[in-house]
Amino acid sequence: MHSFTAASCQLPAASCPLVTNRTVSDIGEHALISRITQRLAKPSWVVVGPGDDAAVLRPERGTFDVLTTDAIVEGVHFDRRFVPPDAIGHRALAVNLSDLAAMGARPRAALLSFVLPDQLEVADVDAMVDGLVALADTHRVAIVGGNITRSPRLGSGQGPGPLMIDVTATGSVKPRRVLTRAGARPGDEVYVTGTLGGAALGLKFFRSGADLSGPPGRGPEGSAPLVEKYLRPVPRVRMGMLLGRNRAASACIDLSDGLADGLRQIAAASGVGIAVDEASIPAVSGSETFYSDDYELLFTSRPAWKGRLRAVKSQAGDLPITRIGLVTKGGGVVLRTASGERELPAGYEHFR
Amino acid sequence: MHSFTAASCQLPAASCPLVTNRTVSDIGEHALISRITQRLAKPSWVVVGPGDDAAVLRPERGTFDVLTTDAIVEGVHFDRRFVPPDAIGHRALAVNLSDLAAMGARPRAALLSFVLPDQLEVADVDAMVDGLVALADTHRVAIVGGNITRSPRLGSGQGPGPLMIDVTATGSVKPRRVLTRAGARPGDEVYVTGTLGGAALGLKFFRSGADLSGPPGRGPEGSAPLVEKYLRPVPRVRMGMLLGRNRAASACIDLSDGLADGLRQIAAASGVGIAVDEASIPAVSGSETFYSDDYELLFTSRPAWKGRLRAVKSQAGDLPITRIGLVTKGGGVVLRTASGERELPAGYEHFR
Repeated sequence: MHSFTAASCQLPAASCPLVTNRTVSDIGEHALISRITQRLAKPSWVVVGPGDDAAVLRPERGTFDVLTTDAIVEGVHFDRRFVPPDAIGHRALAVNLSDLAAMGARPRAALLSFVLPDQLEVADVDAMVDGLVALADTHRVAIVGGNITRSPRLGSGQGPGPLMIDVTATGSVKPRRVLTRAGARPGDEVYVTGTLGGAALGLKFFRSGADLSGPPGRGPEGSAPLVEKYLRPVPRVRMGMLLGRNRAASACIDLSDGLADGLRQIAAASGVGIAVDEASIPAVSGSETFYSDDYELLFTSRPAWKGRLRAVKSQAGDLPITRIGLVTKGGGVVLRTASGERELPAGYEHFR
Repeated sequence: MHSFTAASCQLPAASCPLVTNRTVSDIGEHALISRITQRLAKPSWVVVGPGDDAAVLRPERGTFDVLTTDAIVEGVHFDRRFVPPDAIGHRALAVNLSDLAAMGARPRAALLSFVLPDQLEVADVDAMVDGLVALADTHRVAIVGGNITRSPRLGSGQGPGPLMIDVTATGSVKPRRVLTRAGARPGDEVYVTGTLGGAALGLKFFRSGADLSGPPGRGPEGSAPLVEKYLRPVPRVRMGMLLGRNRAASACIDLSDGLADGLRQIAAASGVGIAVDEASIPAVSGSETFYSDDYELLFTSRPAWKGRLRAVKSQAGDLPITRIGLVTKGGGVVLRTASGERELPAGYEHFR
């Protein structure tokens, strides 16, 4: 379990030898690590970057450290038949940046832990790293370390082990700007960013099988925007920071586990109920909004904070913010529809 | 990929219902997370612990943040036929604390990412968490968050996916106390802590198959201390901090990838050579010291720092520190034996 350590290939990125049709077991762990580390920027606050036992960072003055980890696993979170490698790398970081956004934190650094089947092509590793680094660069996140290990074939006659990426992301937030799930009070209003349901619809296009004969990353005609929403979700990093900076949210969560789960988590953590107006949910037409892993933010805001929310909206650019319900005294989450009220059914859970 | 979130079982640890012969798929992810989080302490500097989108920590004044991640994978780093679950949990944290020790850092917090086969027994998860939390408590490390996901069966007719634990550990170190691999200079002396080879010998006992019919965690007669060294390696947390605090080391690395690798990494990072006197290596009798994953520290120290090193020794208790060689100008690592000098052969590498 080598960490990202002093690289054997010390060439600049452009002159590193191109590897075609070779697998990770052909070139070995040290060469793989080298291919990754040479692509990474090292901002001034990274005291020790990849290449030692651990990374050392200079903290931002007057802030708290925010830390989160999330793994994505082949066969559970993605299917390599239709998710191209760069989208896998993108997703592995995006899911973590989305968590930092939900805390109001500015992302600063990430650690990247790969578990790779031995017959995976090196070009695929390169593409995963490309996808991850592109998103990291967008948000000025430094990849400061990581780890590569082999995914085992278990038992006899087994196929390759699953591909996994576990990313840990860290960020900073000023003490009075921390957003948690626990601050909602009865009377607060409930909001979501963006539109919901697109990711699930994008995935459905793939699962329908129409495109599985083509190259990965392409859905049927006309599905491009939804497919893109599924493949390369945009974490709401800036929106999370704006909500924290303007102190406009009493509770906040990201929706990478779906709206149903998000509503329930805020209700449970805050000890309140939530009533959602179904008609007000900004849904992609024809989608199932409650169980779609859209990387949007769900938050609550006090009625008296309308001015703060206007400030957020004016700074947030094109991203819509939609009121979808109200925080109530009673426990549980209820859905108000044209035909009356009903309880929200349970959300997605692994192992179930 | 639920993170450790607000627990459904809010009972104190002792009153949480005992689960016998049930698998992780029987009780589901939320109940699993609940079983873990209710056992975790929350020190005062943990502002937001498990149960939100991310953890929030109050940094230690005047220090840098130190971050490392390492995954251990079934079939690659451990064999469940002879490594009991508590030892798996112990190892997952120990390998990371060992990395922090090598930087001179005080460990503070860890994130725990589980990838679990669906037929794993809940009692085994409990035992893994027990092993991990016991080591965390010893070093006052707070488990501040994590993640649980399913290990997939890939393809048709496949057996269960591999069990994996990826831990990220974070700590703090004062700016002038950071230990890296890069500070060794020709003329420095080379030291190791403890004794080497025990872990490999302990593993060998298991691999010899003598005990595979018995309960996990037991080797043959008389092998207990070595088996323990393999199963529950002790990360040299205090020694790393003492080396940093006394500014007694010019370079430092942990030996969880073996002595051969450690020597080579320091030589490469510092741009020096190392000459090791084979006879001086503090080896367990009959062991292969160079490729044993003993969780000891390898470090270099200037000849003028003898006083600092004495201070370290006087504060380090029983842990021996042994001089094993010298930093040289020429590149590479050579081994001085009774029959002359030879180059050190390459170390262990995944995928190879």
